[in-house]
Amino acid sequence: MSMRIGFLGGTGIEGRGLALRFAHAGVPVAIGSRSADRALAAAAEYNRVLGSETIRGLVNQEMIRNSDLVFLTLPHDQASAALDAVRADLPAGLVLVDVTVPMRFTEGRAEYVEPPEGSNAEALARRLSPAVDLVGAFKTIPAHVMGELGTALDCDVFVCGDSPAARERAMEAARLVPGLRPLDAGPLAAARTLERMTVLAVNLNRRYKRKGARYRIQGI
Amino acid sequence: MSMRIGFLGGTGIEGRGLALRFAHAGVPVAIGSRSADRALAAAAEYNRVLGSETIRGLVNQEMIRNSDLVFLTLPHDQASAALDAVRADLPAGLVLVDVTVPMRFTEGRAEYVEPPEGSNAEALARRLSPAVDLVGAFKTIPAHVMGELGTALDCDVFVCGDSPAARERAMEAARLVPGLRPLDAGPLAAARTLERMTVLAVNLNRRYKRKGARYRIQGI
Repeated sequence: MSMRIGFLGGTGIEGRGLALRFAHAGVPVAIGSRSADRALAAAAEYNRVLGSETIRGLVNQEMIRNSDLVFLTLPHDQASAALDAVRADLPAGLVLVDVTVPMRFTEGRAEYVEPPEGSNAEALARRLSPAVDLVGAFKTIPAHVMGELGTALDCDVFVCGDSPAARERAMEAARLVPGLRPLDAGPLAAARTLERMTVLAVNLNRRYKRKGARYRIQGI
Repeated sequence: MSMRIGFLGGTGIEGRGLALRFAHAGVPVAIGSRSADRALAAAAEYNRVLGSETIRGLVNQEMIRNSDLVFLTLPHDQASAALDAVRADLPAGLVLVDVTVPMRFTEGRAEYVEPPEGSNAEALARRLSPAVDLVGAFKTIPAHVMGELGTALDCDVFVCGDSPAARERAMEAARLVPGLRPLDAGPLAAARTLERMTVLAVNLNRRYKRKGARYRIQGI
């Protein structure tokens, strides 16, 4: 089964790190943007880092048509609007992977901003037709570390979602990247835990003056 | 600074694992119970496992007088009542370490039972005088693994609490056990994350048919 990976909002730091890692692993990657120019510019920059012409830049609609799995890599407060703008273009069976985490900084600490739906993943899922499967995954891995291709990841990717088949597709994607191990975290509501874990990792980074805190499960 | 460790509710599986690990590391340990007989019976059983007479069994009040740090190792729904019963006996400056996690099982999955206060640690803290410091820690480490002295722990202990000094004391305690690394998780409200992480680990154990899922932070 082919695995072409697209990015809705791939021009930011989250999209950059993931796109680089997947492309580096030989996976076909397309960066999407509302603007073809911005998509092309981002793809060109990423390709310079890779030293090859492997990443394409496309407008969102075209990116979606050319992807089996689309990452939602926007700031959490822009994700809903971006999703609404492409909703009509999302084909049935598409797997959307939400990596967003709603947080704010107060007195030097990151704080989780709990959405009324329980998690941002659940909030976004409500905006979609039931034919599109949303998965929450890759939330806990710092974009900074993803983007440093020389750094061994050596960590776990927690995958949650209400469709077991969609979870499996996201886990397949994670397996394509060296150093990542996917773990099935169950229903989408597990995003309540995963999103908070990201906030904890951000605070650990601040306290210990590091940038790459990420999770590994021992015993599995 | 001495570190004598006591257990309020030390006759259950959580208390057993922690008591064995600390005693094995040479730390003075006292098991507390409302009943001297039950405390003595548990201590005798643990000492048989250890092959030495290092753990004492005491009634709760006496255990508290002989401890610098007291673990609250009761089922989450008994912790409040147990705390209320000894509240008058808790000296100022005592560090209480809450390891409880409120969860229930529904259709084969563990679910977090969110307390109105946000976490069980915060709920328990409200029952205490401000002179007693409550720390949430050791929540994410499976009792099963703690109790298997032959298993290398090789994981992190997340410590949260509103008193930095109390967090430091709990971190000192964690450092006494080989294979445990304490990490400062910040204010007590971080227990909202840690308690959910325990539920996630329980569900990972069930899904992957293991018993010892526990967390290690990479990059710190």
